[in-house]
Amino acid sequence: MNLPNSVRIVEVGPRDGLQNEKGEFISTEVKVELINSLADAGLTHIEAASFVSPKWVPQMADATEVMSGIERKKGVTYSALTPNLIGLEGAISGRANEIAVFSAASEAFTEKNINCSISESLERFKPVMSAAEKAGIPVRGYVSTVIGCPYAGDIDPEAVAKVAEAMYKMGCYEISLGDTVGVGTPLKVKRMLAAVSALVPKERLAVHFHDTYGQALANIYAALEEGIAVIDSSVAGLGGCPYAKGASGNVATEDVVYLLEGLGISSGINLDALVRTSHWITEKLDKKNNSKVALAMGANRSQLEK
Amino acid sequence: MNLPNSVRIVEVGPRDGLQNEKGEFISTEVKVELINSLADAGLTHIEAASFVSPKWVPQMADATEVMSGIERKKGVTYSALTPNLIGLEGAISGRANEIAVFSAASEAFTEKNINCSISESLERFKPVMSAAEKAGIPVRGYVSTVIGCPYAGDIDPEAVAKVAEAMYKMGCYEISLGDTVGVGTPLKVKRMLAAVSALVPKERLAVHFHDTYGQALANIYAALEEGIAVIDSSVAGLGGCPYAKGASGNVATEDVVYLLEGLGISSGINLDALVRTSHWITEKLDKKNNSKVALAMGANRSQLEK
Repeated sequence: MNLPNSVRIVEVGPRDGLQNEKGEFISTEVKVELINSLADAGLTHIEAASFVSPKWVPQMADATEVMSGIERKKGVTYSALTPNLIGLEGAISGRANEIAVFSAASEAFTEKNINCSISESLERFKPVMSAAEKAGIPVRGYVSTVIGCPYAGDIDPEAVAKVAEAMYKMGCYEISLGDTVGVGTPLKVKRMLAAVSALVPKERLAVHFHDTYGQALANIYAALEEGIAVIDSSVAGLGGCPYAKGASGNVATEDVVYLLEGLGISSGINLDALVRTSHWITEKLDKKNNSKVALAMGANRSQLEK
Repeated sequence: MNLPNSVRIVEVGPRDGLQNEKGEFISTEVKVELINSLADAGLTHIEAASFVSPKWVPQMADATEVMSGIERKKGVTYSALTPNLIGLEGAISGRANEIAVFSAASEAFTEKNINCSISESLERFKPVMSAAEKAGIPVRGYVSTVIGCPYAGDIDPEAVAKVAEAMYKMGCYEISLGDTVGVGTPLKVKRMLAAVSALVPKERLAVHFHDTYGQALANIYAALEEGIAVIDSSVAGLGGCPYAKGASGNVATEDVVYLLEGLGISSGINLDALVRTSHWITEKLDKKNNSKVALAMGANRSQLEK
């Protein structure tokens, strides 16, 4: 047990969260206000947009407008997902502080999602990586399906380690390990982290849990016990689960911050401000708030916690 | 880290869960079918009824009929809550295999709830304890507010240990430690368990977490790490939270079983059967299912987990 003293939260709500929200197009104004509020609540790392074809992700069609609309708060990293060189150009002209690329630990998942093998998907990054290096933009790598895959079942921790190492060697400064279908439990998470950290330094790893089966916070606690100090999460649990209708997706940032506060781990985030943002965005989107902390605090924080 | 090899789940849905459900009186028939289904799903310890004045808990007014209506499955303990001698008589004639009594670690909570001090509340059990002993019925003790109190805030682990020890010395064979307002996080839970297990053998302790702030499974994992092997939970998370409208209460049994399965800890429970019971009871009560596992599996277990 060596819990970290402080944790950096990477807020993925405005991109990973909103892009999975069904229904009407969310206005640029709302996206911009969401990002600004999150920065005001103390988030220092915000995934703000995705420069992908609007054919594939219509919800992110206004990435350029979002990036030019947001306030740039000092000390805050505003990142953008860029699957290819066109995306990278958009991110550069949008003044993203960082870009993100993604692969998966499951061949079946990669085949189904981007119609190529894992090693082909890594090859495709190479031009993006070198162009980003030239432009002086740090690159974060996402690995999906690090515990289980909706098509292939259990994933071998060694397969995760191999992809993570490849992305790290290609120049990703940080690798975010995603339990895309939320089937992880603490010992599986620890085994996966042990395999990956044998090949990639632990300080370069982040975890990204989905709460589909309610296990996300237990898994985050297990990851903290292993010394992981970067956690992806989404305000109000925005995003849902594309694999099971009505199920939960991204773990809610509020719930993670509550856990960290209780553990005495600093994150620099103001939970009250974050919960206000959470209620504001779920009202704007007219959707259920997936954060238990937001629901409990919205109801009655003072009585529960005084 | 010494996770137990097996865990006993104490299912509290039919009592602790249903008694907190607002709305219409739930028919005896539904209660009986719920208890029978839970036993069929492999639960071996079911809190089935409460012998209290129907003035205080109208939902439990048919405790006698419930206890006479259920099938008695071999190896299953059907317990009843009995706050006093009248309750105990009801439980004995209802052929309860076990009774439960309760106190709290917070003076303010005890004062507010039962209008006496903690030590007075313990005094009141004495006649119940000796009558139960005479009748050969084991007694389980509940301690509420073991981490925080809605009126007094943080609770000193030593205060929890003192009450737990007193109940243990009075003859309770097991002490269930309840985080009534769900404000616990793993290290607070570990500190509390360390204090209590200095005075009461660990094998005599159970944990009872509420998911108000989404922390229940993380706390259960932390308790398992400390060697606790008895967990209270409620099918479909029945019960809600009396302290915050719309917030979660009891942790859902399905989510606990999923965690245990993932950790390789046996509980003897058939998760598929349990989830069927969970969907059945929430449909009967026309309420939202508070188990993420039930929602995800109801949606699409085969695709998520094949």
